[in-house]
Parts: sequence; C-alpha cells; structure tokens
Amino acid sequence: AWRGKRDEELILPINSSLSVTLHQHQLKTTTTAAISKDFTKDRIWLNGREEDVGQPRIQACLREIRRLARKRKSDGDEDALPLCLSYKVHVASVNNFPTAAGLASSAAGFACLACALARVYGVEGDLSEVARRGSGSACRSLYGGFVEWQMGQRADGKDSIAQQVAPESHWPELRVLILVVSAEKKLMGSTAGMQTSVETSALLRFRAKALVPARMAEMARCIRERDFQAFGQLTMKDSNQFHATCLDTFPPISYLSDTSQRVIRLVHRFNAHHGCTKVAYSFDAGPNAVIFALDDTVPEFVAAVQHSFPPEPNGDKFLQGLPVEPALLSDELKAALGTDPTPGGIRYIIATQVGPGPQVLDDPGAHLLGPDGLPKLAS
Amino acid sequence: AWRGKRDEELILPINSSLSVTLHQHQLKTTTTAAISKDFTKDRIWLNGREEDVGQPRIQACLREIRRLARKRKSDGDEDALPLCLSYKVHVASVNNFPTAAGLASSAAGFACLACALARVYGVEGDLSEVARRGSGSACRSLYGGFVEWQMGQRADGKDSIAQQVAPESHWPELRVLILVVSAEKKLMGSTAGMQTSVETSALLRFRAKALVPARMAEMARCIRERDFQAFGQLTMKDSNQFHATCLDTFPPISYLSDTSQRVIRLVHRFNAHHGCTKVAYSFDAGPNAVIFALDDTVPEFVAAVQHSFPPEPNGDKFLQGLPVEPALLSDELKAALGTDPTPGGIRYIIATQVGPGPQVLDDPGAHLLGPDGLPKLAS
Repeated sequence: AWRGKRDEELILPINSSLSVTLHQHQLKTTTTAAISKDFTKDRIWLNGREEDVGQPRIQACLREIRRLARKRKSDGDEDALPLCLSYKVHVASVNNFPTAAGLASSAAGFACLACALARVYGVEGDLSEVARRGSGSACRSLYGGFVEWQMGQRADGKDSIAQQVAPESHWPELRVLILVVSAEKKLMGSTAGMQTSVETSALLRFRAKALVPARMAEMARCIRERDFQAFGQLTMKDSNQFHATCLDTFPPISYLSDTSQRVIRLVHRFNAHHGCTKVAYSFDAGPNAVIFALDDTVPEFVAAVQHSFPPEPNGDKFLQGLPVEPALLSDELKAALGTDPTPGGIRYIIATQVGPGPQVLDDPGAHLLGPDGLPKLAS
Repeated sequence: AWRGKRDEELILPINSSLSVTLHQHQLKTTTTAAISKDFTKDRIWLNGREEDVGQPRIQACLREIRRLARKRKSDGDEDALPLCLSYKVHVASVNNFPTAAGLASSAAGFACLACALARVYGVEGDLSEVARRGSGSACRSLYGGFVEWQMGQRADGKDSIAQQVAPESHWPELRVLILVVSAEKKLMGSTAGMQTSVETSALLRFRAKALVPARMAEMARCIRERDFQAFGQLTMKDSNQFHATCLDTFPPISYLSDTSQRVIRLVHRFNAHHGCTKVAYSFDAGPNAVIFALDDTVPEFVAAVQHSFPPEPNGDKFLQGLPVEPALLSDELKAALGTDPTPGGIRYIIATQVGPGPQVLDDPGAHLLGPDGLPKLAS
C-alpha cells in the first residue's frame, strides 16, 4: 500500500511500494478500445453500462495517451498515425470479479485501459504515467510478477515509474487467497482522500521517510531469495503500519472491520501453532484480506478459515479459483484457533497465484466492441 | 493513554501523559484496609469475593508501602508506628460500576488501595510510586481534576510522578459521557502487553520521542485556557495516534470495534454539522468511548447517540449518572448523521464530570471491613 500522494495532480506517491500481480485466470479485467473517424465523441462502457467519460481520472488518461502519441509523431516516427489524434475513442471494459468487492478493480482497470489506448494510438514504451493518472496503483499492474513502483525524485514525476522486481515464474509455490468479507455496513469513509493523510498524519510522514526505504530493500531481498518467513512477517507488519497511519489521519480512516481483525487473529494463531510464519495477511483500502502462503500450506489454512467462519448454507460457492485439496484440521490446531466461530463472516475465498502482466487478445471474438464500435452486449 | 513502558519492573512509561479524574458520584472505588496483630496473613476481597493476594501487582504495592513506612520510621518520625510493619493487612474494595466494562477500574482500584494502605501504615506524601506499581495509570488517579503523569528521567523512577495540572473546579462546564458498548466477542487480546509495543512499533517510539512532548504542552495550555476546540481536537488526534501505535505493534493490538468506529464517525459528523468541535472522543484499552463536551452540548449529543444506536427495549437503563435534559434532533442534524442506525450498539451512557481525588470516609458505617477484620458483606 502506498497511501499518500506528494502531488495530487500528477499522482506521485510519498513512498515507493511493491505489489504482486494476481493471475488473470482468476481475476481479470478485459478492455477493448477502438478509434474511428466516424465516432462523434469519446465514450466508455464499464461492465456493460455506459459511464461518464468526463470523469477526471479517465480524462487524465486520455489526455496523457494523446500527448504521448503526439510526441511520438513529432519525434518523426514513421509508424505514427497522424490522423488518429483527432479521432474519438470508444472503450469497453469488464471485470470477471465483483467490482464492488474492493479487489483493486481500479488498478487493474486503469492498467488495462492504458494498454488498450496505447495499442490504438500506437504508443510504445513505459505506460506508467498514463496508468498512474487514472489510479496510482495501476502503474504497478502494467507488469506481471513482483512489481515495484519507484516513487522517484523529480517534480514532474518522470521517474515515478513501475519496474518488475521478479517475473511471475520466479516463485511458483507462492499462492494468494483473497478472503472476501461479507458486505457490512460501511464504517468510516475513505472520502477524506489520501491528501488528508499526508497533511495530518505525522506517523505517515515519518514512516515514508524513515521506515519505507529499508523495508523496500528488505522486501526485494525476501522475494529474490524466496524467503517466505521474512516475506510474510514484513508483509503483515507493513499492512498493519499502513492501517496505523490511516487511523492517525484526521479525521481517521479505518478500513479494517471486526471480521478483518478476526482474520488477523486467525493468522497469528495459525502461525503460533506451527511455530513459524506459514501464512501472512495484507489489507488494502477495504476489509478483505489478501493471504499469502506456499502451496503446501493452502489446504490446511483454507480448512482453518472454514472452521472459524462457517460458510452460510445459502451463500456463494465458498472456494473459488484454483482448486484446493480438502484437508482436516487436527484437534490441536482447532484448539489453538479458539472456539468462537463467526458464521458467514467470510463470503468466499478466491484462490489464485502470481500472474503475468497485460496480455493482448488477438481473437476478434474476444473483443468487447463490435464492428460498429458499440459493446457487443449492450446494456 | 500512555502505552509503553521503559521499565517493566518499575512500571516507567516511555512518555508523559495526562488524564481527567472522573467524579466519584458516578464512578467510584471504595476501599477499606485494616491491620492487626491478630491477622495471620494478608488478605484481599474485591467486590465481595476473596482474591489471591499473591498477585504480583498487589504484592508490589504492599512491598512498596511497607518500604516507605520503614523508611519513615528510620527517618525518626515520632508518629511512625513501629509495630505495624509486622502486622498483616486485610483489604476490601468495591466498584460502583461494572468492573468488566473496561472503565479503567484497575487505575481507580490501585490508587484507592495505595491511599488506604498509606493511612493504615502512616505513610504521607506522594504515593505515585505505590500506585504505579499496581497499575501505571493509577498514579494519575491519586489527584482530582486534570492530572499529568510526568515520565521522569531517572532510572530508579523517583521522578516519574503524578502532578495536578488544574483542580476539578477549574472547568465546571466540562462533561464526560462514557458510552459503554455492548459486550462483543473479544477481538485481538491485549495479552501481548505493552512491552511488545515498545519493542516492535517504530511508530510508537517515534511518537513518544518526537510528538508527545509538544502535545503535552499544548494540552496543558488547552486546559489552562479552557479552549474546548483545541482540547477536543487534540484529544481525538491523540486517541487515534495511540490506537495507531497499537496496530503497528506486532502482533497487532486493536481495541476499537466496529461500534467504536461508528461512534468516531458519529462524532465527526456531529461536529461537521455544527462547523466546530462540539464533542470529542477518546478510547482507552477497550471499545468504550469516552466523550468530552461542554454542558450545553450534552442534551443534543445524547439524543444523537440514541438516534444512531437505538437502545434495546429490554436493555439497561440507557442514561445513567448526571441527569440530562431531553432534546430533539433537528431534521438537518438527523440527515447529517446518516441513516444506518445500529440498534443496541451502545448498551448505556454514564454521564459524569471532572471530580476530586481520593476522599477519606470517616464514618465507620461506610467501611467495608467489620470489627473482626472481615468484609461486612461476606461472599
């Protein structure tokens, strides 16, 4: 998590950050963009529904990609399409996961948008700046595997770019479980915005300056050496510290619900039982938990989640995504987890793994816009 | 809140802190101590039930008070009672509020114990050290009004003492509301202990060193000048920052429940509606909210709490303590508070105010131990 912008307009962070790109087999945004001299205005459809293309973040992406296309043209690139700059664009985008579930859909969405726009406008090279204008975190989603967003030093943000630390093939045993918590009444809003955090939290400023740089270096080491113990510990500590700075914001921001707290307790008890860090949690700007574990730990941990949060009989399919072998919990582990289950606290689990960056879909059948430039599935 | 000890044995804090002593008319601990050559062992009864007098914190208080009595004797004080040092002590203590409700009963209890023991052993002067051994915060409860616990610099803790900043009469309009949240399943335990916070939270260490000193000075100014706006803002910010450092502890500690978060949101919305800081919250090591307000704000805020947390029909008496005039909420305020009430989230409110320090009960009828040295209300 990278809360806190040093520049609101350019969306520059006050510290570097690192993320894991999740596999598209489980969590995917698909986007089609088309330009045509026949289009009379820019239009965008999200999950089949036309949205206001005038939204500032969408406008910022469009402005930036057209600026890059213009620049490329003026640089004398022969492949550049001189006409396209005046063309209007149609964009359609769908997620294969619930948008509202707080699963960073905007990061995936804006990364995908940046790539699709780059294709139609003939822009090549790093798209960090385009994606970043839409949503800061989106620049990390431009690459697969383990990705660092370097905060950079320049005022114009040219060096605030995403870079791959290790490819998706680097740590094949690593698994990611997303624990989607049941819809609860929203607690504190995040409307205050990240700027408020930078302005009001002395702990956030201290963290960004004095603590994050060493943590970034340590995290890169953990990934390079596939040191799960240290990776898990640092992941949990950094998630907690991020949420601590949210609470130190004024008015305070709290993304963790009682269910989130129960997941945190479950993870610590699970690890204490095993005497080492077998699983780690991380929370983004919402109550859902992202759990990291190696593949051989997944069956037992999923069973522990089912034990602590017995699924609702009429709820969603509890385990989604990658298949997980059923496992039984030992009586010792059950005792260690405690005896206060919270039925229905977790709605479902999505099991996934580290995945690649954006992929081009060459098959026209997979495109979301028809030959007429309108969504194939009109709303 | 003063989380974090620099010395576990002496119970020395890593930063100074300030508290408001609540009025005994609403929240009170009564303690009787007696010594006699006929007693065969030290004994203690809490709320009518005999407890293990061997508990380390009780033992530490007894040891410290006897050391002071011995010291006084060897200093040649003629009033000293040479025999009493060999006498065993009986102690009985009761709270007029639920012990388990997380209302700092141990601070009140150990302050009261220190005073009662000092009377029977003939010890005079500052009792900070005696009370502190029982429970750090207890030393602040030795005085009425607004009390600072100066962290001190000495390794032996002799200068880590409580001092009154202003007496209880200083700010007569100030009111305190305790919002007791309904018994919820306990989330994260506080068993980790404060030492863990000092060892694992870099944010706590930074806060103690770089932020608390200026905040202490500012808080003393707010109280001196009865500046409720600034007092309220700083109270909320410091509560949030304390809980932020709890979350930054590893494993993390979280005292705030979903209901606590809803109270925080309610306070901010109430203040936003009024365009100024009319009420302020503070949370100690539990989910109950302590609300500060001036007397003319109390009726409307209590109505707002009742609106947001409709009392259970068969629950406790909702408003306890000081009488509060009924008030109606304007439609504008109702709209500002939002429309997602949480029935039963708050069990009851105790309305109180700033109060005096420990009082001596001269009437033997008020004593808890009978002439035989046993509790009048035996368990």
